[in-house]
Amino acid sequence: MKERLQELQETFYTEIPITYYLGVIVQDYNGNCLTLKAALEKNINHKDTAFAGSLNALVTLAGWGLLWLILKEQELKANIVIQDSRISYLKPVTTHFSAKCYLPESSQISHFVSILSKRGKARLELYLEVWEAGALAVAFQGRYVAVLKNTRIGE
Amino acid sequence: MKERLQELQETFYTEIPITYYLGVIVQDYNGNCLTLKAALEKNINHKDTAFAGSLNALVTLAGWGLLWLILKEQELKANIVIQDSRISYLKPVTTHFSAKCYLPESSQISHFVSILSKRGKARLELYLEVWEAGALAVAFQGRYVAVLKNTRIGE
Repeated sequence: MKERLQELQETFYTEIPITYYLGVIVQDYNGNCLTLKAALEKNINHKDTAFAGSLNALVTLAGWGLLWLILKEQELKANIVIQDSRISYLKPVTTHFSAKCYLPESSQISHFVSILSKRGKARLELYLEVWEAGALAVAFQGRYVAVLKNTRIGE
Repeated sequence: MKERLQELQETFYTEIPITYYLGVIVQDYNGNCLTLKAALEKNINHKDTAFAGSLNALVTLAGWGLLWLILKEQELKANIVIQDSRISYLKPVTTHFSAKCYLPESSQISHFVSILSKRGKARLELYLEVWEAGALAVAFQGRYVAVLKNTRIGE
């Protein structure tokens, strides 16, 4: 898994260069939850808290990264994009911050993989959080779409 | 207005340094719509389109910027934060991109200013768009909160 997380880190930096300036770090995947982190000083705003756009970028990437890990696990090659999202900024983030994306239930993943294999395209809803000092600071819900590479879409 | 837009540009770069790396440019305000732009190459992803996190950051900032202009116009000094937002990525953005934030109806602005003056805190819902080649590429809805500086909040 360590090598796979290293590959995800390199994928971010080479394929989405702004992630370098955001200071996005792939921190951990424990089989149930992917954690990305970023340094406050790279994403600070006028109130010495994390800029909302940076928080949104980190959670968007953590969802993308979890789906990337799921596809790797399934040995499926697909492009991943985000279709829509909602975010609530519940409290200011005043330190380095981490975005956590939990694996959906296995039945949801099976359904997603089945649809993707049959139709070449499938959607997955992911929920993400940023916590600080024991309190939920950011709640995010994103709908991602995977499209198999070299496949004609039938829908 | 030219000087005020220059001040907004400097506010972004000095108070939210990541906006420099995102290449955020305050392009225009015509009295009805604030336009911010950003270069594709600074925000590109693996599909040679704009990274969703960058699009979200630009629209988030354009809403913030419009509210900043409204407050300047009203000669009110307040901190502005975003409370929550929704975004739909409707089509890929393949060139330099602009976020447009239209002024709400004057009755909404009057209500917002009245509440802010009375209570020291008020919310405003803003709608933003990114268009490309005559088609809507990104639709965004954000709820912003302004809190008067040096005021005790009564709510």
